[in-house]
Amino acid sequence: MNKIKVGIVGGTGYTGVELLRLLARHPQVQLQVITSRGEAGLPVADLFPSLRGVVPLIFSDPAKVDLTQCDVVFFATPHGVAMAQTPALVTAGVKVIDLAADFRLQDAAEFEHWYKLPHSCTDILSQAVYGLPEVYADAVKQAQVIGNPGCYPTTVLLGLAPLLEQGWLDFSVPIIADAKSGVSGAGRKAEVATLFAEASDNLRAYGVAGHRHHPEILAQLKKLSGNDDVRLIFVPHLIPMIRGMLTTLHVKLNAQGRSQDLQAVYAQRYADAPFVDVMPAGVLPDTRSVRGANVLRLSITRQPDDYVTLVVVQDNLVKGASGQAVQNMNLMFDLPADTGLQVLPLLP
Amino acid sequence: MNKIKVGIVGGTGYTGVELLRLLARHPQVQLQVITSRGEAGLPVADLFPSLRGVVPLIFSDPAKVDLTQCDVVFFATPHGVAMAQTPALVTAGVKVIDLAADFRLQDAAEFEHWYKLPHSCTDILSQAVYGLPEVYADAVKQAQVIGNPGCYPTTVLLGLAPLLEQGWLDFSVPIIADAKSGVSGAGRKAEVATLFAEASDNLRAYGVAGHRHHPEILAQLKKLSGNDDVRLIFVPHLIPMIRGMLTTLHVKLNAQGRSQDLQAVYAQRYADAPFVDVMPAGVLPDTRSVRGANVLRLSITRQPDDYVTLVVVQDNLVKGASGQAVQNMNLMFDLPADTGLQVLPLLP
Amino acid sequence: MNKIKVGIVGGTGYTGVELLRLLARHPQVQLQVITSRGEAGLPVADLFPSLRGVVPLIFSDPAKVDLTQCDVVFFATPHGVAMAQTPALVTAGVKVIDLAADFRLQDAAEFEHWYKLPHSCTDILSQAVYGLPEVYADAVKQAQVIGNPGCYPTTVLLGLAPLLEQGWLDFSVPIIADAKSGVSGAGRKAEVATLFAEASDNLRAYGVAGHRHHPEILAQLKKLSGNDDVRLIFVPHLIPMIRGMLTTLHVKLNAQGRSQDLQAVYAQRYADAPFVDVMPAGVLPDTRSVRGANVLRLSITRQPDDYVTLVVVQDNLVKGASGQAVQNMNLMFDLPADTGLQVLPLLP
Amino acid sequence: MNKIKVGIVGGTGYTGVELLRLLARHPQVQLQVITSRGEAGLPVADLFPSLRGVVPLIFSDPAKVDLTQCDVVFFATPHGVAMAQTPALVTAGVKVIDLAADFRLQDAAEFEHWYKLPHSCTDILSQAVYGLPEVYADAVKQAQVIGNPGCYPTTVLLGLAPLLEQGWLDFSVPIIADAKSGVSGAGRKAEVATLFAEASDNLRAYGVAGHRHHPEILAQLKKLSGNDDVRLIFVPHLIPMIRGMLTTLHVKLNAQGRSQDLQAVYAQRYADAPFVDVMPAGVLPDTRSVRGANVLRLSITRQPDDYVTLVVVQDNLVKGASGQAVQNMNLMFDLPADTGLQVLPLLP
Repeated sequence: MNKIKVGIVGGTGYTGVELLRLLARHPQVQLQVITSRGEAGLPVADLFPSLRGVVPLIFSDPAKVDLTQCDVVFFATPHGVAMAQTPALVTAGVKVIDLAADFRLQDAAEFEHWYKLPHSCTDILSQAVYGLPEVYADAVKQAQVIGNPGCYPTTVLLGLAPLLEQGWLDFSVPIIADAKSGVSGAGRKAEVATLFAEASDNLRAYGVAGHRHHPEILAQLKKLSGNDDVRLIFVPHLIPMIRGMLTTLHVKLNAQGRSQDLQAVYAQRYADAPFVDVMPAGVLPDTRSVRGANVLRLSITRQPDDYVTLVVVQDNLVKGASGQAVQNMNLMFDLPADTGLQVLPLLP
Repeated sequence: MNKIKVGIVGGTGYTGVELLRLLARHPQVQLQVITSRGEAGLPVADLFPSLRGVVPLIFSDPAKVDLTQCDVVFFATPHGVAMAQTPALVTAGVKVIDLAADFRLQDAAEFEHWYKLPHSCTDILSQAVYGLPEVYADAVKQAQVIGNPGCYPTTVLLGLAPLLEQGWLDFSVPIIADAKSGVSGAGRKAEVATLFAEASDNLRAYGVAGHRHHPEILAQLKKLSGNDDVRLIFVPHLIPMIRGMLTTLHVKLNAQGRSQDLQAVYAQRYADAPFVDVMPAGVLPDTRSVRGANVLRLSITRQPDDYVTLVVVQDNLVKGASGQAVQNMNLMFDLPADTGLQVLPLLP
Repeated sequence: MNKIKVGIVGGTGYTGVELLRLLARHPQVQLQVITSRGEAGLPVADLFPSLRGVVPLIFSDPAKVDLTQCDVVFFATPHGVAMAQTPALVTAGVKVIDLAADFRLQDAAEFEHWYKLPHSCTDILSQAVYGLPEVYADAVKQAQVIGNPGCYPTTVLLGLAPLLEQGWLDFSVPIIADAKSGVSGAGRKAEVATLFAEASDNLRAYGVAGHRHHPEILAQLKKLSGNDDVRLIFVPHLIPMIRGMLTTLHVKLNAQGRSQDLQAVYAQRYADAPFVDVMPAGVLPDTRSVRGANVLRLSITRQPDDYVTLVVVQDNLVKGASGQAVQNMNLMFDLPADTGLQVLPLLP
Repeated sequence: MNKIKVGIVGGTGYTGVELLRLLARHPQVQLQVITSRGEAGLPVADLFPSLRGVVPLIFSDPAKVDLTQCDVVFFATPHGVAMAQTPALVTAGVKVIDLAADFRLQDAAEFEHWYKLPHSCTDILSQAVYGLPEVYADAVKQAQVIGNPGCYPTTVLLGLAPLLEQGWLDFSVPIIADAKSGVSGAGRKAEVATLFAEASDNLRAYGVAGHRHHPEILAQLKKLSGNDDVRLIFVPHLIPMIRGMLTTLHVKLNAQGRSQDLQAVYAQRYADAPFVDVMPAGVLPDTRSVRGANVLRLSITRQPDDYVTLVVVQDNLVKGASGQAVQNMNLMFDLPADTGLQVLPLLP
């Protein structure tokens, strides 16, 4: 088989360099082009010395490059870039995987409300697939355009899918997602709030009054449960670590749910999911157990009064972003799910 | 006035050195004696060079020292030590402030269940006061023996006191306390789990199935609300930072509560509390804003469906332990509340 | 005595907030005014919540404020600001303490070379005093204008002063200063290189080919030794910690030096220096033992072949910047050296 | 080719889990057995959840296992264990790679002095090869027993080999190795000094008066230079990061050395070394650029007076330990050097 010709738009951020780390060792990929407005002309390995001797590419000026030569293009860009370029790529038969939010929310008005941009290609949006392979594998395989899920949504949705799909949650109380992310989630942007001397040895909540991942999660919760009554309280926190995300989910079971052996239910639901690991009963996962790897681990703990506490961990840059994007690509090109994704977590 | 003669039992842990930091600069305190079984004979400043030139004390063998010469004795020891020595001190008229759990739970059976020790002085226990000055100031002033609150309970109780006292919570849903602590909360014990290479750049929940602070919090929630129906889901997490604790509280208001201006209610409730700071509406506190200081800051955010999210921060070693202990001492000796507690947070 | 009326120019950086932390509790200081071009109108405590309830000041527009009402003005600004404003202040009889480099290098050409700015008040520069109190106390007492030393220079100069003053170093080999600084030394500027996700769990050298502190150190080494043959190799490193600086000095003794009891020499040299702590023989200092405090600790280790290794630690923001500035102010206003500087290190 | 049957003795420490991470994905390796006295019977993946689903091994009791079934045995044990078991393995024709110090020092008396153990198999020691492949590749290929180099020595020796081999250093001044290591270098042992709350946000030197790596480095410096006059000042520091080592080398060139183009010399010396990366002139390496990868990067900076500053970085657990051990194994079994060692650094 010919290698997949891959283009990356906007490769200077953390999801960009993470795509490069994974794709550079992907046996079926040929890295064709990577663009950056700001760094055009600079060798990639000068910006990211971790790739010296491995990635010989030079950042290209996006205005001067023809991405239609690629089989697939990843957008690791700010919101709004992908939707501007995707129509031409789709026309040329190129597949698109957007790591930003342009194709995550089917409701264009909602997108516009949260991202302050009108959606410029709602026709493509309506065909785009939400790239959560453990839930939408069949659609992903057929997709031309993927909206790669946000990091927080991935933890909430994979944490709750088995319960939502079965209709076992009591929606008279809201789902509470108390989420915690490492600082790389804020991206490689020069900002005071994420300086080492600000974010280190410190802890804070943010976005309590509204976060862009709230509508994305809620829309998917409704879709997965087939129930519009779902409500969600979502509180993200910033943790002084580079990578890693842990979401603690507090939910209530309904009458049907309360009689289930949840441990067995989860084990069965994810038996064929190579990247979801259900921890043994009584064992909680930690984020370093997935550092650098495309794995999400979760534990299920019953609480009094039919409540359940789920603890879900992933590497926000891998299963929460670039790794999941590669997982989608593998599906789209009929490759075994774990091709190029066998890298093991770095512990300690 | 004569200075207060202070003894510290077990001064080699983090709450011990924190007591020393605060008391060494307390204008009304004379540090009289500090004991350690393991380090007897060692100058304190050899173990804690931060105190070189400031604390001239040498660790004493607890078997050879007469603590009845003191006006007050702090126990910064493992659970069980204080209750063994307190009866003799009480007889001698010495006041006792225990930073461990010996005098926190009025229910001796509960103590025994969680700490695997029979309680050896239940008569004294029944007279002991739970040292949360913002709630029990009058009792603290009269107390001979103080059970200094746990770090997690302090955040939950001060976070909810205004609502509990008014009876504004809906107890048909549990209070959810999603709590996060810096690693110093685990103490200065040689353990693999809290090594730098284990706890750094990592995040995990623990004690989901049961934590010793759960019964302590629950007992106080019941007492503060006068309602035995309160239920609590408490999930602590270990955060890769030295100091700091942030507890996110998810609660539901009842019909009375929902019509209140909570921001104003909290501001008024804590108007005379020098160590509790209600953040302005819309502003969330971070832990570094209290690093090293005896301050607890909190924010109140209304959510849909009558839910409220409270974010509460403190330094677990100060307002969550040694600072609160000194605050109790000030009350017990009729000193202005902030005597010796004016040290400002270290930011950055 | 009337309190000293203090102005701070440029109070939004780390040396600014550190000045505020120290001066807010200084018993002889009245914080009069603090300026910021970018934050004019904002309450200081909104930017630095650690100062809520303690510092009621609001940032003033520097264009609208009359600093001549102050007794002393601290400049916590980028290089070049102080020299523009100092002449008017000197004329008005106001003392000036500049925490930037404007008054550190007596050689204006050298200043111009390293800072790419012509020096605009060389007459005042020639009268300015290098504010290293342990060496130049008498001059500081008389000074109108202080060039507060750089953080790295403070460690090198106090580390070597006893040897330089006695003429005990062998200048046929260079002094090697292998220096390590916490990230706060880079300031509160939005830059990618000092983001948490870049600087955490990482270590690098920088400025090996030339650093602005090199000429400052060298000029003082020559002055202290009275010898123009001194040579210096200075290699700074960036350490993933917020505060703290450790400089390892590798020097060679000459014939006279080799026969000395250096431990005794250092102890005697700094016997009257309340902020310099000579560690006992065989004990090395760590940075946390000075975290937040105006203390510099050092150790002396003899090596084979007449080499000596000195390890010097300080908090870069305190003894390396704002604390030393307050120490200078105390001298200039005839206050006891440790007034307002008794805050103890925060350990852990 | 049949896969190499690998045994690991003592797999519960950091070099052990690192061997597992690398060998589990090594295409020519079959992990046969792993022993642990303390954890016998425990699944490896229970101790290291990062290996769940990948390493099915269970820790074996070392007393009950026959290691002679293996082709090669790695010792990731405390000093002294390998030399007790190696004779029997050698007799059985099994190759041995010891990650501890038992076979690093050819001088048994020196070993005994520094490690407080008599050497029990000096005959094997005399045949053992110092496993630094970039210097001793031919000997490694023929070796039955490898003493895998210490982490610090690897940085110093690869940093200086080009100069030592050419005889270009001036030995009238000592080589100064100012070295910095992440905390994982201290191992996975429960000790107070390496607790998160002790080692985080802190920096210290240690072992200034003598460190076990000093004799190892010195012996190799003499061997590489063929000169017994080499002297070494070695000062290690503990850095608050998990992984990573950076050694700053300060050396003086002799008359021959001073006229060389060092950048070109180094580039040529390491042209065929896949794991040594000479940075471009003027660019300094950082530790994260090698995090998790078997790469050592170095830069060369000329200083005045014929001094040179070399900055050398590696991951202490990979090129400084387990990765280098696998590199040695590849050589011993005639595999391409990078087999199983292509994992890329994790950045950020």
